[in-house]
Amino acid sequence: MITALDHIAIAVPDLEKAIKRFMEDFGLNYNGREDVATAKTSTAFFPLPPTQIELVHPLNGEGPIAGYLEKRGGGLHHLCFRTDDIEADVARLKEKGYQFLSEQPSLGAHNCKVIFIHPKSCDGVLIELSQPMGEH
Amino acid sequence: MITALDHIAIAVPDLEKAIKRFMEDFGLNYNGREDVATAKTSTAFFPLPPTQIELVHPLNGEGPIAGYLEKRGGGLHHLCFRTDDIEADVARLKEKGYQFLSEQPSLGAHNCKVIFIHPKSCDGVLIELSQPMGEH
Repeated sequence: MITALDHIAIAVPDLEKAIKRFMEDFGLNYNGREDVATAKTSTAFFPLPPTQIELVHPLNGEGPIAGYLEKRGGGLHHLCFRTDDIEADVARLKEKGYQFLSEQPSLGAHNCKVIFIHPKSCDGVLIELSQPMGEH
Repeated sequence: MITALDHIAIAVPDLEKAIKRFMEDFGLNYNGREDVATAKTSTAFFPLPPTQIELVHPLNGEGPIAGYLEKRGGGLHHLCFRTDDIEADVARLKEKGYQFLSEQPSLGAHNCKVIFIHPKSCDGVLIELSQPMGEH
């Protein structure tokens, strides 16, 4: 089941500039960067416990975020719900007709199992499910 | 200063259907609807403490959400930071060159003073600042 809003992700055209904005202009704590090679994404996290803001930027100019930025320039990219049993939630939602961007969860940032629900299944919103490894 | 992620807002083309989705499919608690006449918006809230998901839909088919839905069909609409002193934050951000959608904060949902930063000041993200009335 879904237990929390894990994070909100914002696609940004200039990661360093956006990190500076959220630190200096909005006064948020900065928790460091992490490159997620499997998702071709550079990320930066700002904890607002128990949730967080995640900035996402293309790793080496490639991948899904590059396409998003090309089309929209930047903006709110996805929201992520934390779950305590990702396989059970995926099975339950597939049963209800939800489509996913991949067949199985894969390893995302912060050592979590993640999977994305197709935006067309959720009124245009890209929703990620995430379960910290070690749980369940 | 910014103290929390107050909420994430999702523009939805069918409010009743979306309420059902977030209650039944995602298992979130539903905290009821509120029409905000000044913003020409119908809202529905799902608390994920200390933040919440807000669904937004045009009130009587008019207003800014109607335009958004016409253009994009639905999707992540804005994020809202809670502040403990909205006037001070607006003044500080204006000093830094941020543009706002209105000159002054106005009354939003849940008896809060709210103001929106122009998306062009934040890489395409619409950011709301909100301060519960009675604070400060």
